Amino acid sequence: MQSEKELLYFEDLNAGSVFDLGTVALTRDEIVTFARQYDPQPFHLDEVAAIPIFGGLIASGWQTVSLFQRLLVDGFLGDVVCLGSPGVNDIHFLRPTFAGKPLSGRLTIGEKRLSKSRPDRGSVTLKCAMLDEEGEAVMTMKGLVIIACTPKGP
Amino acid sequence: MQSEKELLYFEDLNAGSVFDLGTVALTRDEIVTFARQYDPQPFHLDEVAAIPIFGGLIASGWQTVSLFQRLLVDGFLGDVVCLGSPGVNDIHFLRPTFAGKPLSGRLTIGEKRLSKSRPDRGSVTLKCAMLDEEGEAVMTMKGLVIIACTPKGP
Repeated sequence: MQSEKELLYFEDLNAGSVFDLGTVALTRDEIVTFARQYDPQPFHLDEVAAIPIFGGLIASGWQTVSLFQRLLVDGFLGDVVCLGSPGVNDIHFLRPTFAGKPLSGRLTIGEKRLSKSRPDRGSVTLKCAMLDEEGEAVMTMKGLVIIACTPKGP
Repeated sequence: MQSEKELLYFEDLNAGSVFDLGTVALTRDEIVTFARQYDPQPFHLDEVAAIPIFGGLIASGWQTVSLFQRLLVDGFLGDVVCLGSPGVNDIHFLRPTFAGKPLSGRLTIGEKRLSKSRPDRGSVTLKCAMLDEEGEAVMTMKGLVIIACTPKGP
């Protein structure tokens, strides 16, 4: 029998805390499958078209972001009481994502703000980075999420 | 035999021009498939978990963005000589995306800036909006893309 997971609330998150979210890599097939459905630009579908611009087939930036989201859910959001996201700022695509290249997610907790209109929740800025094997950022962004406060006792 | 497509270059794009990118809708299966792979939060996977927060199952915000990207490629980027994107700003998730809800993409060309270091290209701001049937914005963002200039003659 599994013990119940300890959930984190707004009060439990501290600005500056860092979460290492694990490492993943995309296969060439996964890159092409995503691109066919959501981003069919030649350099996401066809090695030959991609070489003169990027040196090889690269993943859609939205796939790199979505892959980060998966790491974020598995390594952080799955443990907090998240009520959604109003938006994301400052996405930077700094380096291309190639097939087979290991990418690691890193999250740093940023600014916290208790909601004025709804005191049972607050917003938290998530400073997100996808890093390559050398620790260089491939993609960075600042997400905003709404996190529930610890439920008040009866 | 298909005639060759007329490609658009940096000089051909005018700030303020509006492109209607067409309409799509996600099925419940597509929402759950994307969520299982990239964003397995309960309100993207499970109707019952989603109802108290959003009134029903909602798509990952990244799926709404990716769906916009597909409309953008089919209705705009496929006709311009795009050399990639350095990033995206100000993504706002304004309304949830429910299954079966028709969403229409609209693009407005924003600021243009010729590259100082590489005079064969420039950056263009793409003001992007996904609209619902009432014309209300579901998601907005400002993308930056690098567009090639018209090739110089011999």
